[in-house]
Amino acid sequence: MSRTALLSQIQKQQSMLCIGLDTDPKLLPSCLRNDPHPVLSFHKAIIEATADCCIAYKPNLAFFEAMGPAGMEVFAETVAMIPAGILRIADAKRGDIGNTAARYAEAYFEIYDTDAVTLHGYMGRDSVKPFLGRPGKWAVVLGLTSNAGAADFQTKIAADGLPFYRHMVDTALGWGTAEDMMLVVGATRPEELGALRQRYPEHFFLIPGIGAQGGDLEAVCRAGCVEYNNLIINASRSILYASSGVDFAEKARAAAMDLSKKMADLMTGRP
Amino acid sequence: MSRTALLSQIQKQQSMLCIGLDTDPKLLPSCLRNDPHPVLSFHKAIIEATADCCIAYKPNLAFFEAMGPAGMEVFAETVAMIPAGILRIADAKRGDIGNTAARYAEAYFEIYDTDAVTLHGYMGRDSVKPFLGRPGKWAVVLGLTSNAGAADFQTKIAADGLPFYRHMVDTALGWGTAEDMMLVVGATRPEELGALRQRYPEHFFLIPGIGAQGGDLEAVCRAGCVEYNNLIINASRSILYASSGVDFAEKARAAAMDLSKKMADLMTGRP
Repeated sequence: MSRTALLSQIQKQQSMLCIGLDTDPKLLPSCLRNDPHPVLSFHKAIIEATADCCIAYKPNLAFFEAMGPAGMEVFAETVAMIPAGILRIADAKRGDIGNTAARYAEAYFEIYDTDAVTLHGYMGRDSVKPFLGRPGKWAVVLGLTSNAGAADFQTKIAADGLPFYRHMVDTALGWGTAEDMMLVVGATRPEELGALRQRYPEHFFLIPGIGAQGGDLEAVCRAGCVEYNNLIINASRSILYASSGVDFAEKARAAAMDLSKKMADLMTGRP
Repeated sequence: MSRTALLSQIQKQQSMLCIGLDTDPKLLPSCLRNDPHPVLSFHKAIIEATADCCIAYKPNLAFFEAMGPAGMEVFAETVAMIPAGILRIADAKRGDIGNTAARYAEAYFEIYDTDAVTLHGYMGRDSVKPFLGRPGKWAVVLGLTSNAGAADFQTKIAADGLPFYRHMVDTALGWGTAEDMMLVVGATRPEELGALRQRYPEHFFLIPGIGAQGGDLEAVCRAGCVEYNNLIINASRSILYASSGVDFAEKARAAAMDLSKKMADLMTGRP
């Protein structure tokens, strides 16, 4: 999915919402307990209920891997359920040397046919390059994350007075373009998000940390929607587990719609 | 597998060799072309031929993931083939926020029952903590890697004059102990390896980059085997693809034995 197509989709849906599929089998609604494929049925219901009020889904590989080998079948079937025109982000956070990175790119872009993969940039250019230069496919590199652990390393200061994450971002974004790279920036740090947006007006930013992690949607949109509506704002738990009853899909839809509407009000008027 | 057990095994086998299972289906010996499970049969033959001249196997997840969902079955069966007493390292290079990291730990320590998992430390303490404090299990954090891309970020200099990777190492190793954390240090940088060994005499270092990547085994052992033989030195392609003929397992054994013997000569006399 190209940058232009994604911007158009955001304009059309009037939403920048990404729904993270971090499905914990222990938290499934009780009405799915006897389902032979409970996680898959849950994803089907969630996707059917929310596809018209989001622009991306982000299945988180850890939750599929923790289901054993069968989990990767569930991942493949989940990806296949996502309707055309909606971005499919494999939240894999991979990062390895060139020949290994090429296998990950093959897995997520060719075998599972997702559009974007989250990546660590710590191992340098050769670890990201196999994901670049594929029209419509995206490498989403970790910049500044939303969790408490971001303070352990990312916000330490380098010799030039800039934090380590700024070096990561400036280095990594130089490997590709605004057509094949996106950047992860946590919702919990809107000031830093604003500074990164000023420096990188064209790039899409993937924003985790709204909802359960405490990020402020309004602050994020004011900092990140400047020239374009080029944000992909993720929410997971607040939508997936909006209700644990038989109305889980309906309540998920309401939660997604509510977030989307708030986003629409905060978007720039331009496409 | 505890640190003491691993040191004893190294002494007993007179080897610090880890065999990386980065199996590219395109590079399999032609005699396996008609095998219904060629990668699994290849691993079986390689493991049977080399288990008495190594102390660890390191299956690389990317190569299994690139086989689609069935690849994770092959991964599970490969891990199960590794004889007792040999360390099973999942080369996964994962790294994500706490609740996701907990799922990865569940996948690799509980579902697939490997002993060690390679990890990125960029996201901080909460991304590594779920892997710690499990007796006999190991978090193997990336410090200084063996690839060219290490220069893109890891060796840049921080405000205190130390490179970024030193901050990563000093920060990450503080999260655990020499009983539950290991460090990845590339074979291509023996001087830096020596400096890290002086600073961390007790920790096991996992050393990639011997063989195809050009690391010097003698320099690595002189820098890394000081008080203990606490190195795990990986070789992959030079063993797996020692021959593409019917003698592939025999030649893999010869290559592994040759590396092991060189290591034995460079080990300290102490266990």
